[in-house]
Order: sequence, then structure tokens, then C-alpha cells
Amino acid sequence: MKPEEGFLPRGTHVLGDLHGADPEMLADAAFLERAARQAAELAGATVLSVNCHHFGAGLGVAGVVLLAESHLTFHTWPEHGFAALDAFMCGDCRPQLAIEWLSNALRAQSSVVRVIERGTAPTSNKPVAQEHFGNEVA
Amino acid sequence: MKPEEGFLPRGTHVLGDLHGADPEMLADAAFLERAARQAAELAGATVLSVNCHHFGAGLGVAGVVLLAESHLTFHTWPEHGFAALDAFMCGDCRPQLAIEWLSNALRAQSSVVRVIERGTAPTSNKPVAQEHFGNEVA
Repeated sequence: MKPEEGFLPRGTHVLGDLHGADPEMLADAAFLERAARQAAELAGATVLSVNCHHFGAGLGVAGVVLLAESHLTFHTWPEHGFAALDAFMCGDCRPQLAIEWLSNALRAQSSVVRVIERGTAPTSNKPVAQEHFGNEVA
Repeated sequence: MKPEEGFLPRGTHVLGDLHGADPEMLADAAFLERAARQAAELAGATVLSVNCHHFGAGLGVAGVVLLAESHLTFHTWPEHGFAALDAFMCGDCRPQLAIEWLSNALRAQSSVVRVIERGTAPTSNKPVAQEHFGNEVA
């Protein structure tokens, strides 16, 4: 098979660092799994599978949601009120919406959101869009 | 539980767009799963689970590897010789090594690699490091 030329798959990858989020929610694997599914569907994606790992009672949770349009992941540190999220979606999905919705659901006081276009030609060097939301944390 | 202050979890997130990769490898789910596991372990990470979805014979594969140190994912488009990878790892792991090793394993002709520090304070605005490797593609 020879690759087609002149077309590159495109997708948007959104990274969200959430600060000052609710520690109890960040340690609740069942809640996080439901929230991640809901965020992915809200963004217009189709969930294929969800896989979570809870590091222990009161500790963080790592989760990966495999999507027909790529993936959504979350990693939480309840002891720091911190979560690292990423949503990579192709097509007409809106990964930014998933990250914003999760930021609200987890009651984050502030977040750093980076938006990165994937699948652009290697010659392009488009800067990453970065946004800060909410109150600064100490 | 009240979050601790004055400390933020840190991790490095490496995004790799591979161009001109081997189409047969990009359509081989079993190969990709083995390669992703190997890349994660080479980077010093511990694999908790691997979940793959093959979109059909000759078509692309999506895979998520859940790590004790976060995750590694891959999404392939054999018809375009293209793969989008990301490796997010905390602690002493070397996610860049995982992406570089996979780029070589998949015989990519060129790649765009972005390195993003996660868990930095919301006030910081460190630019994303972006590198281009190999030959430009059409």
C-alpha cells in the first residue's frame, strides 16, 4: 500500500491543567469515569472504551477514554487539587468543550488550556494557543 | 481533604506527528501494541493496561496505554503514512525517548515533536518546544 499524497489527517489536541479542583471528586474514580464519558459525548465524540486505574482510597485516578475520533485522558492528584486532562479529537468534534466542561464539573479554580493542531505539515510551525482561566493559585 | 499548597505535580507531555511512516506497520494492531509497550518501558514507565481499536483490515488503529506515570497513545492513518502519538509521563521517565523510538520503529520519514511541561503554575507561560526531524514531506 502506498500512502496518498496531498492530504493530511487533521485533529485538535487540547491540554488542560486544572488547579484548585475539588479533592473529593479527584479521588472518585466512578465519578471521573462518568464525567469523562459525558464530556466526550458533549464534544460530539463516540466512546469506544474507558479504562481507569485508581491508585488507592483518597489517592489519584488515571483514566483513558478511547474514542472513534481519538482519545480523552485524565490524571488526578487530589492531594494537590490538580488534574491534567487531554482531549484529542478529529473531524467536527469540539475537544475544547470537553476540557471546559470537565474544568467546571471538577470545580477548578483556574486552568491552563493549550490548543495544538495535529497533523499539520512538518514545514508549518503554528504556535500553540495557550489560555489561562479563572483565579491564579498560590 | 484540603489540598496541599506550594507544590505542583510535574510531568512532561510529548506530542509526535509522524509523516511518511510504513503503512503496513500503521495498520498492524498487534505490532503497534507491542511497539507502544516497548516504547513506554524503554522510557522508564510501568504499563498498567493497553487498549486498542482497529478500524478494519488495512485501516488505522487507535491505542491507549495507561501507565503508572500517566499514558502513551497512538492513532494511525496508514492511507496517509501518518501517526499521531503522545506520551505524558511524570517523575524520572523520558517520554521523548518513547516518541523518538516509535518514530524510528514505524520508519517515519519526518516528524514534528512538541514538548510541553504540565503542572506548571497558571502564571507561567513557558513556550512549547517544537522540533522538526527528518526530511520534509510533500
